Amino acid sequence: MATQTKPVLYGYFRSSCSWRVRIAFALKGIEYDQVPVNLIKDGGQQLKEQYKALNPMQQVPAVEIDGITLSQSLAVIQYIDETRPGPRLLPTDPKARAQVRIISDLIASGIQPLQNLYVLQKIGAEKVQWAQHFINRGFQALEPILKQISGKYCVGDEISMADICLVPQVYNAERFKVDVEQYPTIKRLNETLLETEAFKKEPEQSDPPNTSKVHLIFVSSYCGCFPD
Amino acid sequence: MATQTKPVLYGYFRSSCSWRVRIAFALKGIEYDQVPVNLIKDGGQQLKEQYKALNPMQQVPAVEIDGITLSQSLAVIQYIDETRPGPRLLPTDPKARAQVRIISDLIASGIQPLQNLYVLQKIGAEKVQWAQHFINRGFQALEPILKQISGKYCVGDEISMADICLVPQVYNAERFKVDVEQYPTIKRLNETLLETEAFKKEPEQSDPPNTSKVHLIFVSSYCGCFPD
Repeated sequence: MATQTKPVLYGYFRSSCSWRVRIAFALKGIEYDQVPVNLIKDGGQQLKEQYKALNPMQQVPAVEIDGITLSQSLAVIQYIDETRPGPRLLPTDPKARAQVRIISDLIASGIQPLQNLYVLQKIGAEKVQWAQHFINRGFQALEPILKQISGKYCVGDEISMADICLVPQVYNAERFKVDVEQYPTIKRLNETLLETEAFKKEPEQSDPPNTSKVHLIFVSSYCGCFPD
Repeated sequence: MATQTKPVLYGYFRSSCSWRVRIAFALKGIEYDQVPVNLIKDGGQQLKEQYKALNPMQQVPAVEIDGITLSQSLAVIQYIDETRPGPRLLPTDPKARAQVRIISDLIASGIQPLQNLYVLQKIGAEKVQWAQHFINRGFQALEPILKQISGKYCVGDEISMADICLVPQVYNAERFKVDVEQYPTIKRLNETLLETEAFKKEPEQSDPPNTSKVHLIFVSSYCGCFPD
């Protein structure tokens, strides 16, 4: 295992799935290199063959770590959690772990895939209403669940993968002008989490200032991933 | 913990997410009761307030187990795996676990949510082409990944959660007339898995013959879940 080598995160500053992984690295205190994959520029850099070799799904993020390449943000986060010291991103109690995964999957399978750029491009003119519909539908389910099980954070009083999924999804909701005031528990949790350094968003610019390694520059014409 | 009580699975015979949980129970040799929630009949029984209390997302499956109610099929499967003896549904090696989760999430977040009944009803006339597009897009990514890492099964030579996700997704692909011949590794794995008793599909009827507990009968007029 090449654990002495820093992991490399291929991501995009506006991708909520990339942001999840950045939060996880920050919470664990793991240093990593970032390679920006601009999902807008050049028609979508994730569609180049060079990137497809890293992630055949042509989505960000992809992560090179310990000699392997991972994709799918929740798989990456759980791999980090299972192999790195630092605060646990999933609790040890099986029931609490299940609650963390229910919230994470509700967002990662039930909301985010339906409001990412690729899908919205296919929807066309009605895309904003479509995104609002699916975010509201998910939040209407999430609010009573979180009202019941949250403490200071989504599941009790420890930050977990559920929180890592929540904050980028609330950011997306706000971008699509969803009225988050309707969801007081979601709003309260999001505000609490944003006070934590690891959850702060990178500035809104195409190449984040803390990029320390840039070796993936290419051109393509198809935008097929999740830059929401 | 009421582990002496049999779990109760609220599901629908045609829901691929319910099917995942049935496979997991079968692989683990866990006896359970089933409550059919018919996603078509009465406009969708999952939309009744009584069911919404079990799963606010108004989707199947929901599982009552150990005194709690779980939803989101991958959260349920991992809870079962972490609390029950029997064959492991995720391997012990972290890298292999990550591979299992990458495949599972590629299907559960990257394909299935985009081709479930609720979404297709919103798409309208173009729904078959829409479903085919997203299944093909996912399979085009899955095929090279599985070609690289599969053994007898999706990840090496042990059945895992990845296989549990694959078989119902291939079934959906065939229902939507996707040409699975284009994906020889997916086809081969599916055929191998279907030879295993736990992966056999229930007969195509609204109420499965092995239903042992039916106490959820209600009427509603909105179909908001995942009967694919």
